[in-house]
Amino acid sequence: MISYAEALDKILSEVRIYPIELVSLNQSLGRVLSADVTADRDYPPFHRSAMDGFAIHSHGYAQNQIYPYHRELPAGMSMDLEPNELAIRIMTGAPVPDGLDVVIKIEDATLSGSNGEKQVSFSLKEVKPWQNIAKQGEDVRKNQLVLPKGIQIGTSEFSLLASLGKDKVPVVKAPEVHIISTGNEVVPIHQSPLTYQIRDSNSYTISSILSKYKIQPESVTHVPDLESELTEQIQKGLDADILILSGGVSMGSMDLVPSILQKLGVELIFHKTAIKPGKPIWFGKRKNTVVFGMPGNPFSVQTCSRIFLEPFLRKSYGQNQLPSYKLPFSSTKQRKGGLTEFFPVRFETTDKTYLSPTAFNGSGDVRAGIFSDGLAVFPSELSQIQPGDMIEFLPW
Amino acid sequence: MISYAEALDKILSEVRIYPIELVSLNQSLGRVLSADVTADRDYPPFHRSAMDGFAIHSHGYAQNQIYPYHRELPAGMSMDLEPNELAIRIMTGAPVPDGLDVVIKIEDATLSGSNGEKQVSFSLKEVKPWQNIAKQGEDVRKNQLVLPKGIQIGTSEFSLLASLGKDKVPVVKAPEVHIISTGNEVVPIHQSPLTYQIRDSNSYTISSILSKYKIQPESVTHVPDLESELTEQIQKGLDADILILSGGVSMGSMDLVPSILQKLGVELIFHKTAIKPGKPIWFGKRKNTVVFGMPGNPFSVQTCSRIFLEPFLRKSYGQNQLPSYKLPFSSTKQRKGGLTEFFPVRFETTDKTYLSPTAFNGSGDVRAGIFSDGLAVFPSELSQIQPGDMIEFLPW
Repeated sequence: MISYAEALDKILSEVRIYPIELVSLNQSLGRVLSADVTADRDYPPFHRSAMDGFAIHSHGYAQNQIYPYHRELPAGMSMDLEPNELAIRIMTGAPVPDGLDVVIKIEDATLSGSNGEKQVSFSLKEVKPWQNIAKQGEDVRKNQLVLPKGIQIGTSEFSLLASLGKDKVPVVKAPEVHIISTGNEVVPIHQSPLTYQIRDSNSYTISSILSKYKIQPESVTHVPDLESELTEQIQKGLDADILILSGGVSMGSMDLVPSILQKLGVELIFHKTAIKPGKPIWFGKRKNTVVFGMPGNPFSVQTCSRIFLEPFLRKSYGQNQLPSYKLPFSSTKQRKGGLTEFFPVRFETTDKTYLSPTAFNGSGDVRAGIFSDGLAVFPSELSQIQPGDMIEFLPW
Repeated sequence: MISYAEALDKILSEVRIYPIELVSLNQSLGRVLSADVTADRDYPPFHRSAMDGFAIHSHGYAQNQIYPYHRELPAGMSMDLEPNELAIRIMTGAPVPDGLDVVIKIEDATLSGSNGEKQVSFSLKEVKPWQNIAKQGEDVRKNQLVLPKGIQIGTSEFSLLASLGKDKVPVVKAPEVHIISTGNEVVPIHQSPLTYQIRDSNSYTISSILSKYKIQPESVTHVPDLESELTEQIQKGLDADILILSGGVSMGSMDLVPSILQKLGVELIFHKTAIKPGKPIWFGKRKNTVVFGMPGNPFSVQTCSRIFLEPFLRKSYGQNQLPSYKLPFSSTKQRKGGLTEFFPVRFETTDKTYLSPTAFNGSGDVRAGIFSDGLAVFPSELSQIQPGDMIEFLPW
């Protein structure tokens, strides 16, 4: 049985490159940029006053010296200095006129006047050239790379794209995904289950993970464990870029999925990996289609989606992997066996932030994962984690 | 000037209670539950076999003893024992028949047979009652509270709601929000800006934050700094549950927002707070409408949205506040002045996870926030943070 690391490697080796599409900026939140974005002009685009106050020149400045002034420059306007004009009232965001190089904030100014002429003096002992001015291009130069392809568009990136005037944004096109949940015991959620039946939650789990990648599945199907029907639906599902199955990959006589996949020409890449939960996972490919055969327990599906499906999608999107963290554990956890184990934890902050396991009753528990912030990793080579040990954390 | 903590308190004191609505499960991801959810039945709903193998009774078990068997029970079916039937082949997920209390996994079984009769024996020295069986109700009892109101529906909760058959979910209705960005220097993103003009990114920043709370703003308007037009639009905006303005709240002569709000009968709750960025923020209310007057710099808007608007929304939704973390800082940061400062950081994991500041050029920099995972808090009473110091972190 291959290790978690080997399984992940094999999955990431099957990465696919998806085409790109242009979407409107309003539709781009959460999508992944498919091309580098450069600045359309300098930022700031002009010498921008960073304060409300007065613009003057640093040369010849003296404390309490009287400056006559008669004009005011709000943001959104520009102004050329008149001959002998030494000071103007200026607002935050306005362009400092050529010939001036200092802004003094209004709180440091003393206004006066005589004979209808307005005057100002300043309490500062000295001034420095360009104080309180954001110089043109000091943040970003025209044509400079500001957003690399592969970045996911969050609030900061969305705001930056708006500043740059990108009303159309090139993003990675979402792949076509089919979801098939299997199992004779499983009924759709609208149906009242018999005592020994359960409702289909796995397609919801998988859809929820896909929605993080702005993927709306093309089809979501439930199929009982009947060879003919399963074969027909899997055959249809193999049209997609990604086919995700849940259930039917374990050791039981009703676990028909592996044999049907192989009959349909899907090449097995691995079956089973040394993890808990999720050990029976099946992974393979046929031409451009990759197939994830996930086990049937809800928490196994959630774990396999997080540790295998998401990394596959991120790499296919040209994205960095989700960061992995090392945070101190809050308590003691022991176990037997040499599997890499994933268990739900939540943050607990006292003097620092710890990872604290959330209560649940094994991977069949419908509540597994509730109230958790992500998965902690119990490495295969350890049999105990102690309070304060740094452990790997994978956020949801 | 009031402190950050006082400002946040005043905002949270103005929390509003929004009505509830029923949405289909498919539409509920990311929404906030508005009623407690209880279990419709026991979970597991029956004594569920956790393995593929054989079901027997623990009484009288002996290693290598021969059990005849002739029936197989897949998941999704049930079975009553026949007289003198001592063992059945059973699959994961199937209900263990009354009269049996042990499941032995197939790997521990030896199959044999004679005269067309199937037989099995087991290599285990002993068995324990209920081994490899998830007992009915051991995870959750019927009518037990499983999801409290106020929880946001993520993958685990979505999956659980599906398991419980909740095809309609009661959630908090999103409030009506109007966004007004102000400033003569600001043009819509589709328009080509003149040298001394900039594009409106603030309404995108605010919309992006609102989308985390599944709020689609009712209107997004840009208004120049003209008293009549601003008055008219703000008057309209006061119909909403929440009016969010950006720009026009500082010290300049064009900063008309505070005086217009007060003329329109909006009660000032505070103006300015000792934070950086975002110091000039204005907050007030008129009847059921609350008004956030945010400063005009993009990063100020993003910060004020994260530290003030989001906590307000979460409390109004009956949600817990976003967790705050304490994580070690990667480097040294010094500053003057006694403001509570917020600056963008990203995770950096070596031996443990550190917070590392991201490069940017002040709150006017269009790139502020890019590549960051959240905000770090520089407390007002400190003038230096050193490597390894535990600092507060607010994730985006």
